[in-house]
Amino acid sequence: MQVPVIQQIMKANDQVANENAKTFEQAGVRVVNVMASPGAGKTSLILEAIARLPAGMRPGVIEGDIASTIDADRIAAHDVPVVQINTGGNCHLDAPMIRTALDHLDLDALDVLFIENVGNLICPSNYRLGSHVNLLIASVPEGHDKPFKYPGMYANADLVALNKYDLAEVFAFDFEAFEHGVRMVNPTVPIFRVSARTGEGVDAWLSALLQQLALQPA
Amino acid sequence: MQVPVIQQIMKANDQVANENAKTFEQAGVRVVNVMASPGAGKTSLILEAIARLPAGMRPGVIEGDIASTIDADRIAAHDVPVVQINTGGNCHLDAPMIRTALDHLDLDALDVLFIENVGNLICPSNYRLGSHVNLLIASVPEGHDKPFKYPGMYANADLVALNKYDLAEVFAFDFEAFEHGVRMVNPTVPIFRVSARTGEGVDAWLSALLQQLALQPA
Repeated sequence: MQVPVIQQIMKANDQVANENAKTFEQAGVRVVNVMASPGAGKTSLILEAIARLPAGMRPGVIEGDIASTIDADRIAAHDVPVVQINTGGNCHLDAPMIRTALDHLDLDALDVLFIENVGNLICPSNYRLGSHVNLLIASVPEGHDKPFKYPGMYANADLVALNKYDLAEVFAFDFEAFEHGVRMVNPTVPIFRVSARTGEGVDAWLSALLQQLALQPA
Repeated sequence: MQVPVIQQIMKANDQVANENAKTFEQAGVRVVNVMASPGAGKTSLILEAIARLPAGMRPGVIEGDIASTIDADRIAAHDVPVVQINTGGNCHLDAPMIRTALDHLDLDALDVLFIENVGNLICPSNYRLGSHVNLLIASVPEGHDKPFKYPGMYANADLVALNKYDLAEVFAFDFEAFEHGVRMVNPTVPIFRVSARTGEGVDAWLSALLQQLALQPA
């Protein structure tokens, strides 16, 4: 009895995700769905990316959280258009939430939209939002075994940024083991080692992201 | 339409949680539900606790993960009875899963049972398992703002262990801000700063845990 209910929910979500995608297309906005564990550095990397966008490229952000406006406040402090979605208890954003948030954003004034999903390595991977790129931010302190434990999230990623890599030694992080885990479920996804704190690797990662978003010649 | 379904699920879960609690009572086993983000150090702190238990106190572990037996293998390597639950896509353990796992554990041979929940700061707080203590493991690299963002999890905690505290300076972790966030939703929960890596603070935390489990005089 439970499975048909879940399928209906997913079908309704997919329908709205397709509408969102059409809206983005018409407005000429490219969209990245940013997913990660709590505290992996989603907001920090979004801010790093925004600071390094090519001149004239106009960013916007949708912030998803269970509660609070901490992340949206951080973004707004940089004069970037931002909408906060508080999901209540929900462990992920869904397409209708994005639809509602779009009423509060002037898409014609944007070129690239970052959607920061709820901090979670499980639920967000099941809900399409209508975005162009699924960006998964992994983080060194989480440990290199996470791709084995959260295969759904890694399987759905178009791009992986492994953040806090400046601390790889402190945490005895085994990059080869991590890469092996990612490759088991996603043989081709590009993996970039970055640090939002030191800036290391951020340019190369952002360049790959913009290429995937078709915002820059390959 | 959705809310009644959710309530029914929760009611069924609570019923089985009560049966689990009765089973634990009859066997004289005290049970802790260990919850945290991915990579906060659940397995490491469980292993630290087990290594420091008073002589003669017999531990067991139930490991919950989306996939893999990595954590169960780590526990089993220490000759501790362990059962792995793979939840498939589910972002939390529930009482019926624990019920099933109990068929594979000899409760009469145990005094304390650690249930390691799925790595997630959202879903697990809504599902009672029949345990005696809700232990929340926070972790310095996640950042001090997490209590504001995941209030449900912090509100339900009986005990908070803040792990990786040896790296507080590296991450510019503001303990007062963290404590303030915890106190907003849970005014009385004890908070212990620990490091599974260096052993710092682990004895004091474990002593508080055993007191809450009524396994040691207060």
